[in-house]
Amino acid sequence: MSERPTSLERLRRRVAEVGVPICVGIDPHPDALPEELPRNVEGVERFARGLLSATGDLAAAIKINIAFFEAFGSAGWAALERVVADLERDQFLILDAKRGDIRTTAERQAEALMGRLGADAVTVSPYLGEDAIEPFLAHPGRMVFVLARTSNPSAGTFQDLRVEGVALDERIARWVADRWPDGRAGLVVGGVEPAVLARLRAIAPGPGFLVPGIGAQGGNLEAGLEHCHGSWAPGLVTISRAIATASRGSDWEAAARSAAQAWIGRMREAGATLSV
Amino acid sequence: MSERPTSLERLRRRVAEVGVPICVGIDPHPDALPEELPRNVEGVERFARGLLSATGDLAAAIKINIAFFEAFGSAGWAALERVVADLERDQFLILDAKRGDIRTTAERQAEALMGRLGADAVTVSPYLGEDAIEPFLAHPGRMVFVLARTSNPSAGTFQDLRVEGVALDERIARWVADRWPDGRAGLVVGGVEPAVLARLRAIAPGPGFLVPGIGAQGGNLEAGLEHCHGSWAPGLVTISRAIATASRGSDWEAAARSAAQAWIGRMREAGATLSV
Repeated sequence: MSERPTSLERLRRRVAEVGVPICVGIDPHPDALPEELPRNVEGVERFARGLLSATGDLAAAIKINIAFFEAFGSAGWAALERVVADLERDQFLILDAKRGDIRTTAERQAEALMGRLGADAVTVSPYLGEDAIEPFLAHPGRMVFVLARTSNPSAGTFQDLRVEGVALDERIARWVADRWPDGRAGLVVGGVEPAVLARLRAIAPGPGFLVPGIGAQGGNLEAGLEHCHGSWAPGLVTISRAIATASRGSDWEAAARSAAQAWIGRMREAGATLSV
Repeated sequence: MSERPTSLERLRRRVAEVGVPICVGIDPHPDALPEELPRNVEGVERFARGLLSATGDLAAAIKINIAFFEAFGSAGWAALERVVADLERDQFLILDAKRGDIRTTAERQAEALMGRLGADAVTVSPYLGEDAIEPFLAHPGRMVFVLARTSNPSAGTFQDLRVEGVALDERIARWVADRWPDGRAGLVVGGVEPAVLARLRAIAPGPGFLVPGIGAQGGNLEAGLEHCHGSWAPGLVTISRAIATASRGSDWEAAARSAAQAWIGRMREAGATLSV
Protein backbone atom coordinates (compact mmCIF):
# COMPACT_ATOMS: atom_id res chain seq x y z
CA MET A 1 0.00 0.00 0.00
CA SER A 2 1.49 3.31 -1.01
CA GLU A 3 1.49 6.22 1.37
CA ARG A 4 -0.65 9.19 0.56
CA PRO A 5 1.62 11.88 -0.89
CA THR A 6 2.20 15.00 1.18
CA SER A 7 0.22 18.10 0.40
CA LEU A 8 3.34 19.74 -1.03
CA GLU A 9 3.87 16.79 -3.39
CA ARG A 10 0.24 16.97 -4.47
CA LEU A 11 0.48 20.72 -5.02
CA ARG A 12 3.57 20.26 -7.22
CA ARG A 13 1.79 17.59 -9.21
CA ARG A 14 -1.41 19.62 -9.68
CA VAL A 15 0.46 22.74 -10.76
CA ALA A 16 2.51 20.65 -13.20
CA GLU A 17 -0.60 18.95 -14.62
CA VAL A 18 -2.57 22.16 -15.05
CA GLY A 19 0.47 24.02 -16.34
CA VAL A 20 -0.36 27.30 -14.63
CA PRO A 21 -0.68 28.09 -10.92
CA ILE A 22 -4.38 28.92 -11.00
CA CYS A 23 -6.23 28.70 -7.72
CA VAL A 24 -10.00 29.08 -8.01
CA GLY A 25 -11.36 31.02 -5.05
CA ILE A 26 -14.79 30.10 -3.71
CA ASP A 27 -16.10 33.09 -1.73
CA PRO A 28 -19.86 32.63 -1.96
CA HIS A 29 -21.22 35.95 -0.76
CA PRO A 30 -25.01 35.85 -0.73
CA ASP A 31 -25.13 39.13 -2.69
CA ALA A 32 -23.00 37.58 -5.44
CA LEU A 33 -25.13 34.53 -6.12
CA PRO A 34 -26.54 33.82 -9.56
CA GLU A 35 -30.05 35.21 -9.90
CA GLU A 36 -31.63 31.76 -9.99
CA LEU A 37 -30.28 30.73 -6.58
CA PRO A 38 -31.91 31.58 -3.25
CA ARG A 39 -30.06 34.05 -0.99
CA ASN A 40 -29.59 31.52 1.80
CA VAL A 41 -27.39 28.63 2.82
CA GLU A 42 -28.89 26.40 0.16
CA GLY A 43 -28.00 28.98 -2.47
CA VAL A 44 -24.48 29.30 -1.12
CA GLU A 45 -23.98 25.53 -1.24
CA ARG A 46 -25.38 25.23 -4.76
CA PHE A 47 -23.18 28.13 -5.89
CA ALA A 48 -20.05 26.56 -4.41
CA ARG A 49 -20.88 23.14 -5.85
CA GLY A 50 -21.63 24.61 -9.25
CA LEU A 51 -18.35 26.52 -9.33
CA LEU A 52 -16.37 23.47 -8.24
CA SER A 53 -18.07 21.27 -10.77
CA ALA A 54 -17.52 23.82 -13.54
CA THR A 55 -13.89 24.67 -12.78
CA GLY A 56 -12.43 22.03 -10.46
CA ASP A 57 -10.70 20.01 -13.17
CA LEU A 58 -9.12 23.18 -14.56
CA ALA A 59 -7.77 24.43 -11.25
CA ALA A 60 -4.39 23.67 -9.70
CA ALA A 61 -5.97 24.37 -6.33
CA ILE A 62 -9.24 25.38 -4.74
CA LYS A 63 -9.45 27.99 -2.01
CA ILE A 64 -12.67 28.10 -0.02
CA ASN A 65 -13.28 31.09 2.23
CA ILE A 66 -15.09 29.46 5.11
CA ALA A 67 -16.60 32.65 6.56
CA PHE A 68 -19.25 32.53 3.83
CA PHE A 69 -20.40 29.18 5.20
CA GLU A 70 -19.82 30.04 8.87
CA ALA A 71 -22.22 32.97 8.47
CA PHE A 72 -25.04 30.42 8.39
CA GLY A 73 -23.98 28.72 11.60
CA SER A 74 -24.23 24.95 11.94
CA ALA A 75 -26.25 24.73 8.72
CA GLY A 76 -23.41 26.53 6.94
CA TRP A 77 -20.80 24.20 8.39
CA ALA A 78 -22.85 21.20 7.36
CA ALA A 79 -22.97 22.62 3.83
CA LEU A 80 -19.21 23.15 3.89
CA GLU A 81 -18.70 19.56 5.05
CA ARG A 82 -20.79 18.27 2.16
CA VAL A 83 -19.00 20.46 -0.38
CA VAL A 84 -15.56 19.38 0.84
CA ALA A 85 -16.52 15.70 1.03
CA ASP A 86 -17.46 15.75 -2.65
CA LEU A 87 -14.20 17.29 -3.87
CA GLU A 88 -12.11 15.16 -6.17
CA ARG A 89 -9.61 13.22 -4.11
CA ASP A 90 -6.57 14.69 -5.85
CA GLN A 91 -7.77 18.29 -5.55
CA PHE A 92 -5.51 20.57 -3.48
CA LEU A 93 -7.75 22.29 -0.95
CA ILE A 94 -6.92 25.51 0.86
CA LEU A 95 -9.30 26.61 3.59
CA ASP A 96 -9.03 30.36 3.90
CA ALA A 97 -9.83 30.87 7.57
CA LYS A 98 -7.06 33.15 8.88
CA ARG A 99 -6.83 31.21 12.10
CA GLY A 100 -4.19 31.19 14.84
CA ASP A 101 -4.43 31.18 18.63
CA ILE A 102 -2.56 30.00 21.69
CA ARG A 103 -1.35 26.44 21.32
CA THR A 104 -4.19 24.37 22.78
CA THR A 105 -6.74 26.43 20.87
CA ALA A 106 -4.80 26.34 17.62
CA GLU A 107 -4.71 22.54 17.94
CA ARG A 108 -8.50 22.53 17.92
CA GLN A 109 -8.62 24.94 14.97
CA ALA A 110 -6.30 22.59 13.10
CA GLU A 111 -8.48 19.62 14.05
CA ALA A 112 -11.50 21.43 12.60
CA LEU A 113 -9.90 22.40 9.33
CA MET A 114 -7.26 19.74 8.68
CA GLY A 115 -8.42 16.79 10.75
CA ARG A 116 -12.11 17.02 10.02
CA LEU A 117 -12.36 18.90 6.73
CA GLY A 118 -9.11 17.53 5.32
CA ALA A 119 -7.59 20.81 4.16
CA ASP A 120 -4.19 20.54 2.54
CA ALA A 121 -3.44 24.06 3.71
CA VAL A 122 -4.94 26.71 5.96
CA THR A 123 -4.31 30.45 5.99
CA VAL A 124 -3.00 31.60 9.39
CA SER A 125 -2.19 34.86 11.11
CA PRO A 126 1.35 35.56 12.34
CA TYR A 127 0.47 37.91 15.21
CA LEU A 128 0.79 35.34 18.02
CA GLY A 129 4.08 33.94 16.75
CA GLU A 130 5.08 30.33 16.22
CA ASP A 131 2.82 28.79 18.89
CA ALA A 132 -0.21 29.71 16.83
CA ILE A 133 1.12 28.13 13.64
CA GLU A 134 2.95 24.97 14.67
CA PRO A 135 -0.22 23.04 15.62
CA PHE A 136 -1.30 23.24 11.97
CA LEU A 137 2.05 21.92 10.75
CA ALA A 138 1.84 19.15 13.35
CA HIS A 139 -0.66 17.52 10.98
CA PRO A 140 1.76 15.38 8.97
CA GLY A 141 2.39 16.59 5.45
CA ARG A 142 0.00 19.55 5.60
CA MET A 143 0.78 23.17 4.85
CA VAL A 144 0.01 26.70 5.99
CA PHE A 145 0.03 30.06 4.25
CA VAL A 146 0.99 32.76 6.74
CA LEU A 147 -0.43 36.24 6.19
CA ALA A 148 2.41 38.53 5.21
CA ARG A 149 0.70 41.08 2.98
CA THR A 150 -3.05 41.22 2.59
CA SER A 151 -4.90 42.78 -0.35
CA ASN A 152 -7.31 45.04 1.56
CA PRO A 153 -7.14 48.86 1.60
CA SER A 154 -5.94 49.06 5.21
CA ALA A 155 -3.28 46.37 4.81
CA GLY A 156 -0.54 48.91 5.28
CA THR A 157 -1.71 50.14 8.68
CA PHE A 158 0.54 47.60 10.39
CA GLN A 159 2.11 45.66 7.53
CA ASP A 160 4.01 48.76 6.36
CA LEU A 161 5.42 49.66 9.77
CA ARG A 162 9.19 49.61 9.78
CA VAL A 163 11.02 47.47 12.31
CA GLU A 164 14.78 47.96 12.39
CA GLY A 165 14.60 49.40 8.91
CA VAL A 166 12.50 46.56 7.50
CA ALA A 167 8.76 46.58 6.84
CA LEU A 168 6.75 44.29 9.11
CA ASP A 169 5.52 42.21 6.17
CA GLU A 170 9.15 41.61 5.15
CA ARG A 171 10.06 40.70 8.70
CA ILE A 172 7.28 38.12 8.70
CA ALA A 173 8.29 36.76 5.30
CA ARG A 174 11.88 36.29 6.46
CA TRP A 175 10.77 34.75 9.74
CA VAL A 176 8.59 32.18 7.98
CA ALA A 177 11.41 31.28 5.60
CA ASP A 178 13.95 30.99 8.42
CA ARG A 179 11.71 29.00 10.71
CA TRP A 180 10.19 26.49 8.28
CA PRO A 181 12.76 26.13 5.48
CA ASP A 182 11.04 23.21 3.77
CA GLY A 183 8.24 24.69 1.69
CA ARG A 184 5.43 23.61 4.03
CA ALA A 185 4.88 27.18 5.20
CA GLY A 186 4.00 29.56 2.39
CA LEU A 187 2.99 33.19 2.53
CA VAL A 188 -0.14 35.10 1.61
CA VAL A 189 1.04 38.03 -0.49
CA GLY A 190 -1.67 40.18 -2.04
CA GLY A 191 -1.22 40.95 -5.71
CA VAL A 192 -2.60 44.47 -5.74
CA GLU A 193 0.83 46.13 -5.74
CA PRO A 194 3.42 44.42 -7.95
CA ALA A 195 6.25 46.08 -6.03
CA VAL A 196 5.15 44.35 -2.84
CA LEU A 197 5.34 40.96 -4.52
CA ALA A 198 8.83 41.68 -5.83
CA ARG A 199 9.99 43.03 -2.50
CA LEU A 200 8.81 40.01 -0.51
CA ARG A 201 10.10 37.53 -3.08
CA ALA A 202 13.54 39.13 -2.89
CA ILE A 203 13.52 38.67 0.88
CA ALA A 204 12.08 35.16 0.94
CA PRO A 205 13.08 33.21 -2.17
CA GLY A 206 11.95 29.82 -0.81
CA PRO A 207 8.28 29.77 0.18
CA GLY A 208 5.41 29.57 -2.26
CA PHE A 209 3.17 32.64 -2.29
CA LEU A 210 -0.60 32.44 -2.30
CA VAL A 211 -1.52 35.58 -4.24
CA PRO A 212 -5.06 36.96 -3.83
CA GLY A 213 -6.34 40.23 -5.24
CA ILE A 214 -5.96 39.38 -8.94
CA GLY A 215 -9.06 39.85 -11.09
CA ALA A 216 -11.87 41.80 -9.46
CA GLN A 217 -9.54 43.52 -6.99
CA GLY A 218 -7.33 44.75 -9.82
CA GLY A 219 -4.08 43.02 -8.94
CA ASN A 220 -1.40 42.55 -11.52
CA LEU A 221 -1.50 39.09 -13.08
CA GLU A 222 1.99 39.22 -14.56
CA ALA A 223 3.57 40.20 -11.26
CA GLY A 224 1.62 37.47 -9.49
CA LEU A 225 2.85 34.86 -11.96
CA GLU A 226 6.40 36.15 -11.92
CA HIS A 227 6.75 36.02 -8.17
CA CYS A 228 4.37 33.37 -6.82
CA HIS A 229 6.69 30.38 -7.15
CA GLY A 230 9.36 29.86 -4.53
CA SER A 231 12.47 27.75 -4.79
CA TRP A 232 11.02 25.29 -2.25
CA ALA A 233 7.39 25.18 -3.33
CA PRO A 234 5.07 26.29 -6.10
CA GLY A 235 2.90 29.31 -5.52
CA LEU A 236 -0.67 29.99 -6.56
CA VAL A 237 -2.54 32.93 -8.04
CA THR A 238 -6.13 33.03 -6.83
CA ILE A 239 -8.96 34.17 -9.09
CA SER A 240 -12.23 34.43 -7.22
CA ARG A 241 -14.98 36.88 -8.20
CA ALA A 242 -13.74 37.25 -11.78
CA ILE A 243 -14.62 33.58 -12.30
CA ALA A 244 -17.48 33.17 -9.83
CA THR A 245 -19.51 36.12 -11.04
CA ALA A 246 -18.67 35.92 -14.75
CA SER A 247 -22.42 35.66 -15.27
CA ARG A 248 -25.28 35.93 -12.83
CA GLY A 249 -27.77 34.63 -15.35
CA SER A 250 -28.76 31.02 -15.92
CA ASP A 251 -25.52 30.36 -17.81
CA TRP A 252 -23.40 31.02 -14.69
CA GLU A 253 -21.73 27.62 -14.57
CA ALA A 254 -20.71 27.66 -18.22
CA ALA A 255 -19.62 31.28 -17.85
CA ALA A 256 -17.48 30.39 -14.85
CA ARG A 257 -15.81 27.60 -16.81
CA SER A 258 -15.20 29.91 -19.75
CA ALA A 259 -13.81 32.56 -17.44
CA ALA A 260 -11.47 30.04 -15.80
CA GLN A 261 -10.31 28.92 -19.25
CA ALA A 262 -9.76 32.53 -20.27
CA TRP A 263 -7.69 33.19 -17.14
CA ILE A 264 -5.65 30.06 -17.83
CA GLY A 265 -5.10 31.35 -21.35
CA ARG A 266 -3.98 34.71 -20.02
CA MET A 267 -1.64 32.96 -17.62
CA ARG A 268 -0.14 30.85 -20.41
CA GLU A 269 0.31 33.94 -22.59
CA ALA A 270 1.96 35.73 -19.74
CA GLY A 271 4.61 33.05 -19.95
CA ALA A 272 3.69 31.28 -16.77
CA THR A 273 6.00 28.38 -17.29
CA LEU A 274 6.35 26.10 -14.34
CA SER A 275 9.40 27.26 -12.45
CA VAL A 276 9.51 24.59 -9.76
CA MET B 1 -41.08 49.79 24.30
CA SER B 2 -37.60 50.43 25.61
CA GLU B 3 -34.59 49.89 23.40
CA ARG B 4 -32.22 47.09 24.26
CA PRO B 5 -29.21 48.64 26.03
CA THR B 6 -25.90 48.62 24.21
CA SER B 7 -23.37 45.94 25.02
CA LEU B 8 -21.19 48.52 26.77
CA GLU B 9 -24.11 49.56 28.98
CA ARG B 10 -24.82 45.94 29.80
CA LEU B 11 -21.17 45.29 30.59
CA ARG B 12 -21.09 48.26 32.96
CA ARG B 13 -24.23 47.02 34.67
CA ARG B 14 -23.00 43.44 35.03
CA VAL B 15 -19.62 44.49 36.42
CA ALA B 16 -21.38 46.81 38.88
CA GLU B 17 -23.82 44.10 39.95
CA VAL B 18 -21.17 41.43 40.42
CA GLY B 19 -18.79 43.89 42.04
CA VAL B 20 -15.65 42.43 40.48
CA PRO B 21 -14.68 42.13 36.80
CA ILE B 22 -14.70 38.35 36.66
CA CYS B 23 -15.08 36.78 33.25
CA VAL B 24 -15.58 33.02 33.29
CA GLY B 25 -13.78 31.42 30.36
CA ILE B 26 -15.34 28.37 28.74
CA ASP B 27 -12.59 26.54 26.85
CA PRO B 28 -13.90 22.98 26.77
CA HIS B 29 -10.89 20.98 25.66
CA PRO B 30 -11.84 17.30 25.34
CA ASP B 31 -8.83 16.32 27.46
CA ALA B 32 -10.05 18.59 30.28
CA LEU B 33 -13.54 17.18 30.61
CA PRO B 34 -14.79 15.76 33.89
CA GLU B 35 -14.25 12.03 34.05
CA GLU B 36 -17.97 11.26 33.83
CA LEU B 37 -18.41 13.00 30.48
CA PRO B 38 -17.72 11.42 27.10
CA ARG B 39 -14.74 12.78 25.15
CA ASN B 40 -16.86 13.98 22.25
CA VAL B 41 -19.13 16.83 21.22
CA GLU B 42 -21.83 15.73 23.63
CA GLY B 43 -19.31 15.86 26.47
CA VAL B 44 -18.12 19.29 25.40
CA GLU B 45 -21.67 20.62 25.32
CA ARG B 46 -22.53 19.13 28.71
CA PHE B 47 -19.31 20.53 30.16
CA ALA B 48 -20.02 24.03 28.83
CA ARG B 49 -23.63 23.92 30.01
CA GLY B 50 -22.63 22.68 33.42
CA LEU B 51 -20.05 25.41 33.85
CA LEU B 52 -22.48 28.09 32.72
CA SER B 53 -25.19 26.80 34.99
CA ALA B 54 -22.79 26.59 37.95
CA THR B 55 -21.10 29.97 37.48
CA GLY B 56 -23.17 32.13 35.13
CA ASP B 57 -24.95 34.11 37.84
CA LEU B 58 -21.61 34.84 39.53
CA ALA B 59 -19.85 36.07 36.41
CA ALA B 60 -19.72 39.61 35.08
CA ALA B 61 -19.13 38.12 31.63
CA ILE B 62 -18.78 34.79 29.88
CA LYS B 63 -16.07 34.14 27.29
CA ILE B 64 -16.55 31.11 25.09
CA ASN B 65 -13.63 29.96 22.98
CA ILE B 66 -15.40 28.74 19.90
CA ALA B 67 -12.54 26.63 18.53
CA PHE B 68 -13.44 23.93 21.04
CA PHE B 69 -16.85 23.64 19.39
CA GLU B 70 -15.62 24.22 15.85
CA ALA B 71 -13.33 21.20 16.23
CA PHE B 72 -16.46 19.03 15.96
CA GLY B 73 -17.63 20.64 12.73
CA SER B 74 -21.33 21.28 12.16
CA ALA B 75 -22.24 19.18 15.20
CA GLY B 76 -19.98 21.41 17.30
CA TRP B 77 -21.54 24.58 15.89
CA ALA B 78 -24.99 23.21 16.59
CA ALA B 79 -23.91 22.56 20.19
CA LEU B 80 -22.53 26.10 20.43
CA GLU B 81 -25.82 27.48 19.11
CA ARG B 82 -27.78 25.58 21.76
CA VAL B 83 -25.42 26.67 24.55
CA VAL B 84 -25.62 30.33 23.52
CA ALA B 85 -29.39 30.25 23.05
CA ASP B 86 -29.81 29.12 26.64
CA LEU B 87 -27.68 31.86 28.20
CA GLU B 88 -29.47 34.26 30.51
CA ARG B 89 -30.64 37.25 28.51
CA ASP B 90 -28.65 39.77 30.53
CA GLN B 91 -25.41 37.81 30.36
CA PHE B 92 -22.54 39.59 28.61
CA LEU B 93 -21.17 37.17 26.03
CA ILE B 94 -17.72 37.34 24.48
CA LEU B 95 -17.00 34.93 21.66
CA ASP B 96 -13.27 34.35 21.58
CA ALA B 97 -12.68 33.68 17.92
CA LYS B 98 -9.74 35.91 16.95
CA ARG B 99 -11.33 36.78 13.64
CA GLY B 100 -10.57 39.48 11.10
CA ASP B 101 -10.36 39.49 7.31
CA ILE B 102 -10.86 41.76 4.32
CA ARG B 103 -14.08 43.72 4.59
CA THR B 104 -16.62 41.52 2.79
CA THR B 105 -15.32 38.47 4.62
CA ALA B 106 -15.22 40.19 8.01
CA GLU B 107 -18.85 41.14 7.47
CA ARG B 108 -19.71 37.45 7.21
CA GLN B 109 -17.62 36.62 10.27
CA ALA B 110 -19.52 39.31 12.18
CA GLU B 111 -22.82 37.94 10.90
CA ALA B 112 -21.85 34.49 12.23
CA LEU B 113 -20.79 35.64 15.67
CA MET B 114 -22.83 38.78 16.35
CA GLY B 115 -25.81 38.45 14.01
CA ARG B 116 -26.47 34.77 14.49
CA LEU B 117 -24.93 33.90 17.86
CA GLY B 118 -25.65 37.28 19.42
CA ALA B 119 -22.21 37.95 20.89
CA ASP B 120 -21.82 41.23 22.73
CA ALA B 121 -18.15 41.21 21.81
CA VAL B 122 -15.74 39.27 19.61
CA THR B 123 -11.97 39.04 19.85
CA VAL B 124 -10.31 40.25 16.63
CA SER B 125 -6.82 40.40 15.17
CA PRO B 126 -5.27 43.75 14.24
CA TYR B 127 -2.97 42.53 11.47
CA LEU B 128 -5.19 43.58 8.53
CA GLY B 129 -5.91 47.03 9.97
CA GLU B 130 -9.23 48.79 10.34
CA ASP B 131 -11.05 47.10 7.42
CA ALA B 132 -10.97 43.83 9.32
CA ILE B 133 -12.44 45.29 12.51
CA GLU B 134 -15.04 47.86 11.43
CA PRO B 135 -17.55 45.28 10.14
CA PHE B 136 -17.88 43.96 13.70
CA LEU B 137 -18.48 47.46 15.09
CA ALA B 138 -21.03 48.02 12.33
CA HIS B 139 -23.35 45.84 14.39
CA PRO B 140 -25.04 48.56 16.45
CA GLY B 141 -23.98 48.67 20.06
CA ARG B 142 -21.63 45.69 19.91
CA MET B 143 -17.99 45.59 20.94
CA VAL B 144 -14.64 44.09 19.95
CA PHE B 145 -11.50 43.24 21.87
CA VAL B 146 -8.48 43.72 19.62
CA LEU B 147 -5.46 41.51 20.27
CA ALA B 148 -2.67 43.68 21.59
CA ARG B 149 -0.73 41.32 23.84
CA THR B 150 -1.45 37.62 23.95
CA SER B 151 -0.59 35.30 26.83
CA ASN B 152 1.23 32.56 24.89
CA PRO B 153 4.97 31.85 25.09
CA SER B 154 5.72 33.16 21.58
CA ALA B 155 3.66 36.33 22.03
CA GLY B 156 6.79 38.45 21.91
CA THR B 157 7.95 37.23 18.51
CA PHE B 158 6.13 40.10 16.82
CA GLN B 159 4.38 41.91 19.66
CA ASP B 160 7.73 42.99 21.15
CA LEU B 161 9.17 44.35 17.92
CA ARG B 162 9.96 48.02 18.17
CA VAL B 163 8.48 50.43 15.65
CA GLU B 164 9.79 53.97 15.85
CA GLY B 165 10.88 53.30 19.41
CA VAL B 166 7.55 51.82 20.49
CA ALA B 167 6.70 48.13 20.87
CA LEU B 168 4.19 46.82 18.34
CA ASP B 169 1.68 45.94 21.07
CA GLU B 170 1.83 49.55 22.31
CA ARG B 171 1.41 50.84 18.79
CA ILE B 172 -1.72 48.72 18.43
CA ALA B 173 -3.08 49.84 21.81
CA ARG B 174 -2.63 53.48 20.90
CA TRP B 175 -4.14 52.94 17.47
CA VAL B 176 -7.26 51.30 18.90
CA ALA B 177 -7.68 54.13 21.43
CA ASP B 178 -7.18 56.81 18.78
CA ARG B 179 -9.43 55.23 16.22
CA TRP B 180 -12.40 54.19 18.38
CA PRO B 181 -12.39 56.61 21.33
CA ASP B 182 -15.73 55.49 22.74
CA GLY B 183 -15.08 52.31 24.70
CA ARG B 184 -16.57 49.97 22.11
CA ALA B 185 -13.14 48.68 21.11
CA GLY B 186 -11.24 47.11 23.99
CA LEU B 187 -7.92 45.32 24.00
CA VAL B 188 -6.83 41.80 24.78
CA VAL B 189 -3.87 42.14 27.13
CA GLY B 190 -2.49 38.92 28.59
CA GLY B 191 -1.91 38.96 32.32
CA VAL B 192 1.20 36.82 32.45
CA GLU B 193 3.57 39.77 32.80
CA PRO B 194 2.32 42.57 35.09
CA ALA B 195 4.71 45.04 33.49
CA VAL B 196 3.01 44.56 30.14
CA LEU B 197 -0.37 45.43 31.62
CA ALA B 198 1.01 48.58 33.22
CA ARG B 199 2.85 49.59 30.07
CA LEU B 200 -0.21 49.25 27.83
CA ARG B 201 -2.53 50.92 30.33
CA ALA B 202 -0.19 53.91 30.47
CA ILE B 203 -0.36 54.21 26.70
CA ALA B 204 -4.10 53.61 26.34
CA PRO B 205 -6.01 54.87 29.40
CA GLY B 206 -9.44 54.62 27.77
CA PRO B 207 -10.24 51.11 26.52
CA GLY B 208 -11.25 48.22 28.72
CA PHE B 209 -8.78 45.34 28.77
CA LEU B 210 -9.81 41.72 28.49
CA VAL B 211 -7.11 40.00 30.54
CA PRO B 212 -6.52 36.28 29.95
CA GLY B 213 -3.74 34.20 31.44
CA ILE B 214 -4.75 34.53 35.09
CA GLY B 215 -5.14 31.30 37.04
CA ALA B 216 -3.76 28.22 35.33
CA GLN B 217 -1.38 30.24 33.12
CA GLY B 218 0.11 31.93 36.18
CA GLY B 219 -0.79 35.53 35.44
CA ASN B 220 -0.84 38.10 38.18
CA LEU B 221 -4.33 38.71 39.52
CA GLU B 222 -3.54 41.98 41.26
CA ALA B 223 -1.97 43.48 38.16
CA GLY B 224 -4.94 42.33 36.10
CA LEU B 225 -7.38 43.97 38.48
CA GLU B 226 -5.33 47.13 38.79
CA HIS B 227 -5.12 47.71 35.07
CA CYS B 228 -8.13 46.07 33.42
CA HIS B 229 -10.53 49.00 33.73
CA GLY B 230 -10.25 51.88 31.29
CA SER B 231 -11.64 55.35 31.64
CA TRP B 232 -14.16 54.64 28.86
CA ALA B 233 -15.15 51.08 29.67
CA PRO B 234 -14.79 48.42 32.34
CA GLY B 235 -12.30 45.66 31.78
CA LEU B 236 -12.51 41.97 32.58
CA VAL B 237 -10.18 39.39 34.09
CA THR B 238 -10.79 35.96 32.62
CA ILE B 239 -10.48 32.83 34.73
CA SER B 240 -10.83 29.68 32.66
CA ARG B 241 -9.14 26.42 33.57
CA ALA B 242 -8.78 27.31 37.25
CA ILE B 243 -12.56 27.26 37.48
CA ALA B 244 -13.43 24.72 34.79
CA THR B 245 -11.10 22.01 36.01
CA ALA B 246 -11.39 22.64 39.75
CA SER B 247 -12.50 19.03 39.99
CA ARG B 248 -12.70 16.34 37.35
CA GLY B 249 -14.70 14.07 39.62
CA SER B 250 -18.48 13.89 39.91
CA ASP B 251 -18.52 17.10 41.97
CA TRP B 252 -17.17 19.15 39.06
CA GLU B 253 -20.10 21.57 38.86
CA ALA B 254 -20.12 22.34 42.59
CA ALA B 255 -16.33 22.59 42.50
CA ALA B 256 -16.49 25.06 39.62
CA ARG B 257 -18.98 27.19 41.53
CA SER B 258 -16.82 27.11 44.64
CA ALA B 259 -13.75 27.99 42.61
CA ALA B 260 -15.55 30.93 41.00
CA GLN B 261 -16.65 32.13 44.44
CA ALA B 262 -13.09 31.76 45.71
CA TRP B 263 -11.75 33.82 42.77
CA ILE B 264 -14.38 36.47 43.43
CA GLY B 265 -13.28 36.51 47.05
CA ARG B 266 -9.65 36.90 46.02
CA MET B 267 -10.64 39.71 43.69
CA ARG B 268 -12.56 41.48 46.44
CA GLU B 269 -9.62 41.09 48.83
CA ALA B 270 -7.28 42.45 46.23
CA GLY B 271 -9.30 45.62 46.48
CA ALA B 272 -10.99 45.30 43.17
CA THR B 273 -13.36 48.16 43.71
CA LEU B 274 -15.27 49.15 40.67
CA SER B 275 -13.39 52.03 39.11
CA VAL B 276 -15.76 52.82 36.27
